[in-house]
Amino acid sequence: MRAVLDEVRFLAFDVFGTVVDWRSSIARAAEPFLTGHGIEVDPLVFADEWRSRYQPSMEAVRTGVRPWVPLERLNRESLETVLARHGVDFGAVTGDELAELNRAWTRLDPWPDSVVGLTRLQRRFPIGPLSNGSIAGMLALARFGGLPWNVILGAEIAHNYKPMPQTYLRSVEAVGLRPDQVAMVAAHNADLRAARAVGLRTVFVARPLEFGPGQTADLTAEDDWDLVTGSITEVADLLGC
Amino acid sequence: MRAVLDEVRFLAFDVFGTVVDWRSSIARAAEPFLTGHGIEVDPLVFADEWRSRYQPSMEAVRTGVRPWVPLERLNRESLETVLARHGVDFGAVTGDELAELNRAWTRLDPWPDSVVGLTRLQRRFPIGPLSNGSIAGMLALARFGGLPWNVILGAEIAHNYKPMPQTYLRSVEAVGLRPDQVAMVAAHNADLRAARAVGLRTVFVARPLEFGPGQTADLTAEDDWDLVTGSITEVADLLGC
Repeated sequence: MRAVLDEVRFLAFDVFGTVVDWRSSIARAAEPFLTGHGIEVDPLVFADEWRSRYQPSMEAVRTGVRPWVPLERLNRESLETVLARHGVDFGAVTGDELAELNRAWTRLDPWPDSVVGLTRLQRRFPIGPLSNGSIAGMLALARFGGLPWNVILGAEIAHNYKPMPQTYLRSVEAVGLRPDQVAMVAAHNADLRAARAVGLRTVFVARPLEFGPGQTADLTAEDDWDLVTGSITEVADLLGC
Repeated sequence: MRAVLDEVRFLAFDVFGTVVDWRSSIARAAEPFLTGHGIEVDPLVFADEWRSRYQPSMEAVRTGVRPWVPLERLNRESLETVLARHGVDFGAVTGDELAELNRAWTRLDPWPDSVVGLTRLQRRFPIGPLSNGSIAGMLALARFGGLPWNVILGAEIAHNYKPMPQTYLRSVEAVGLRPDQVAMVAAHNADLRAARAVGLRTVFVARPLEFGPGQTADLTAEDDWDLVTGSITEVADLLGC
């Protein structure tokens, strides 16, 4: 293990993309809805369209233009935006149907290495999400996929979204540690850059299929992260768990 | 299972006294300190004295006279108050010693039925502390005792202490449920009264030795709580887990 990680006492995880495969899971959940309403779009493309609203939807909260709202609310607004672009007749769609489709974000399959890797890591380190997802969303996702979190940190604790510094710092403070005692584990270079900027340690997990076979971003580590891996089990290997 | 509990989707636990035996654990941790500094008091009496400052120490935060501070801070102040009453020479005690003794609150033994009971309950319900302890304190306690929480709720989520209504309501909101979908599990009638007042379901666990053999309060259920039990394993029995 690299000496820079010797002081680490908590592992904080990005979740969407790093721990769970949102793309195929959202496509699976959307398929019957799209078919049922005659919306002619590949469910995987629909998942990409919905997800493409993810970062922009948080921006008004990050900048303080909009007060804190949890991610479910932003996801629901993004869903309606995307459906509107496909010319959906909202008179023919019930609120319950939209709420149910939005709950797809609580039923995302873990990547094949996630549960075994987290279970190994958790024997030695307390672990928790440091995600933009809400506490309720992270809890539901953990129950769905069997993710053995010890605590749920992240955006709802800080009432702001990553990559704002306070999202990391408030999470670190909540577990009673210094930033250099917490390692951020993520598949996204921007997340690690923001975490490092406020003093956290950094672990990269490559997820080259998160955005499908045509993925162009985050294929490799873009900086000298403290650990660079290809799976959560490899993180466990390298940390001696 | 009683019909009133049919809608329950989350079990929220009081921790100090309900899940862990603070009295004997604090006495064990305090004994070498007391001996080392020549403080002539039974360690169990010392534990009771320290604990007797618990409820009053939170009052200024509850009433808004004092801004939110986590329980560690209040415990530390209470420790110094109690030591001062015993005429301790603070010049002979280091800050590190006091900090270490204060950390005894993160090393409290679970009652014998707690881990097995929680583990059984957790297969069917998500579970978490709804305690006045901090997130860091609850996490440390879980790691120490092997408590299989899925999430940590309570005072730090709400920035106020039980029995203030918002401590329960903000915790319920954080897991995305209605109050009647959450059961509060506690050994203290006052905790259950406050939880019921804002709509939560109520499960009493008798802990007649929490305050030692001379305990006079909370020996029995003082109201018609939704479940009345003598252990967390009995809660699991009655909920069919």
